[in-house]
Amino acid sequence: MGGLEVERTTTGWAAREPSGILSPYTYNLRTTGPEDVYIKVLYCGICHTDIHQVKNDLGMSNYPMVPGHEVVGEVVEVGSDVTKYKAGDVVGIGVIVGCCRNCRPCKLDIEQYCNKKIWSYNDVYTDGKPTQGGFAGEMVVDQKFVVKIPDGLAPEQAAPLLCAGVTVFSPLSHFGLKHSGLRGGILGLGGVGHIGVKIAKAMGHHMTVISSSDKKKEEALGHLGADEYLVSSDTNQMQGAADSLDYIIDTVPAFHPLEPYLSLLKLDGKLILMGVISTPLQFVSPMVMLGRKTITGSFIGSMKETEEMLEFCKEKGLSSKIEVIKMDYINKAFERLEKNDVRYRFVVDVAGSKLDQ
Amino acid sequence: MGGLEVERTTTGWAAREPSGILSPYTYNLRTTGPEDVYIKVLYCGICHTDIHQVKNDLGMSNYPMVPGHEVVGEVVEVGSDVTKYKAGDVVGIGVIVGCCRNCRPCKLDIEQYCNKKIWSYNDVYTDGKPTQGGFAGEMVVDQKFVVKIPDGLAPEQAAPLLCAGVTVFSPLSHFGLKHSGLRGGILGLGGVGHIGVKIAKAMGHHMTVISSSDKKKEEALGHLGADEYLVSSDTNQMQGAADSLDYIIDTVPAFHPLEPYLSLLKLDGKLILMGVISTPLQFVSPMVMLGRKTITGSFIGSMKETEEMLEFCKEKGLSSKIEVIKMDYINKAFERLEKNDVRYRFVVDVAGSKLDQ
Repeated sequence: MGGLEVERTTTGWAAREPSGILSPYTYNLRTTGPEDVYIKVLYCGICHTDIHQVKNDLGMSNYPMVPGHEVVGEVVEVGSDVTKYKAGDVVGIGVIVGCCRNCRPCKLDIEQYCNKKIWSYNDVYTDGKPTQGGFAGEMVVDQKFVVKIPDGLAPEQAAPLLCAGVTVFSPLSHFGLKHSGLRGGILGLGGVGHIGVKIAKAMGHHMTVISSSDKKKEEALGHLGADEYLVSSDTNQMQGAADSLDYIIDTVPAFHPLEPYLSLLKLDGKLILMGVISTPLQFVSPMVMLGRKTITGSFIGSMKETEEMLEFCKEKGLSSKIEVIKMDYINKAFERLEKNDVRYRFVVDVAGSKLDQ
Repeated sequence: MGGLEVERTTTGWAAREPSGILSPYTYNLRTTGPEDVYIKVLYCGICHTDIHQVKNDLGMSNYPMVPGHEVVGEVVEVGSDVTKYKAGDVVGIGVIVGCCRNCRPCKLDIEQYCNKKIWSYNDVYTDGKPTQGGFAGEMVVDQKFVVKIPDGLAPEQAAPLLCAGVTVFSPLSHFGLKHSGLRGGILGLGGVGHIGVKIAKAMGHHMTVISSSDKKKEEALGHLGADEYLVSSDTNQMQGAADSLDYIIDTVPAFHPLEPYLSLLKLDGKLILMGVISTPLQFVSPMVMLGRKTITGSFIGSMKETEEMLEFCKEKGLSSKIEVIKMDYINKAFERLEKNDVRYRFVVDVAGSKLDQ
């Protein structure tokens, strides 16, 4: 295991400035420390956040930046204190690769809420070096932030689950919404929304997709298996569905009124926000008071929940709807994703791509 | 019990039009039906809602209107099917005197959320006649909406508990916030807010009163027993208290920003709204997502919770801070309440007042 002491290089695709165009970039990886897992990347999903990051939409981007946080890879080598993984294991890495381990969230095993969490890319690791994501040949990751992909779950299928999947699974689990028989709503049928329908259906929920037009009706009811489809601009439809849902997962990443959706909730219903929206959202207080309704939100999920979610998806034979591409298509894929032109998630076949050209 | 079949009259103080000035008004009470309790009113608290109602602020007022929904009285006579109460018992009546008994909220014993609930006044009873409230000599109320005032709780002290008290107790109970050791906040130190501090302190919570100025600091810390006092306009104070509270009970009945208060909440903290505010409240989604925080609200409480709350207050020896007045002072009291000039609740000594002049 001499490799443990040698600093290696890897090649990924990085953005160099806010145009967000990705191109090959070679950089060093840290040596595999005692707690580290050295991973050859197989697949990596494209999340909408990747676009915000490479384009510096949040004003906090550092370049060169290799995005990608829905990573499935194969273990090549493990550090001396790693017993859970061995070479050849198929594993996943998500949005976070570090946390403080001492704060309340860390002690509660919900490290995604740690204020000192380290993002998989566009962050600085404990060694002072930038973190780089999964659109790259290899990654070195602390074992705490590595999860086993269960046998029987295809690696390209697992990739979107590591962010989009657990983002939906976590609040359903945390807010006591996992049991069958519930009536749920999904607002916004993108990457997270489509996995939301699939996961909630697998939990035995009656699912309503709510959309601004009827464009996605056929695919929602047909391909995704939703039970109902509501057009939010159709007042009659919306009134007919008032007071009918136990929860709504709201994935819309832009300003939208909340009241039409609060109206759809039953007593004690929950509106769970997942879109990072900087324009203030609005509601009048009686809309929550008179049905003891809840507006809340949730942020990805813990490693523990990721494990549970993967096991759940394997047991239920759940598959996400993906379009597998090679790395040289990634800039085009970002363009298409910005136009919402993908059903529903791009996954890059990293191991099957030429990364250096 | 010949009285059961005779329609009686009573005299209360009614508003006749939107000036909201109350004056004596004599009207019929229904005969005491099998399920009814005929009550001589002893005390009735003045709630801010009474002002909105008599002045037609909500545009739904019918006159003549006898307000009052924090009623403590003595049972005079009971219907043939009433076994829980007998003449001489001291009982309370709150905001609601009827519900459908068949809907989901009714079946869950949270009849305050029934869509067909009947308000104690300014509503129409099942017999087609207007309901009239507690600023009157007598009331006839269905036994389901009557609660026993525990021995040892002074009737004038119990009055404000029947609306303000249960309004605070219910969400603390429902949202799992009754156990000791929690850190709570009270925003707005009026009738509900002051009872909130008292009830939460009696639960063993560390209580912070949050106010727009330091005017109420001495009384909050001194008379009410709050542990801390935060001035919301003091950025340093607010930042120092960030991420410190398990919940905030927000009693402010007018538009105000939510984000400063969301910042005070810990992970999984809850902002519980109690003020009916028609101007939309605002927040940006990351404020709830990144700490899995909840914005919710609650509306009075159930009869079951009212019973629990009264028992709790008796056990803890809790007293509310009230100013007892006679009925001929009620118009002045309304004026003063509008200016927030009362520490903290007016209670009318109805039985000790001359009602007909």
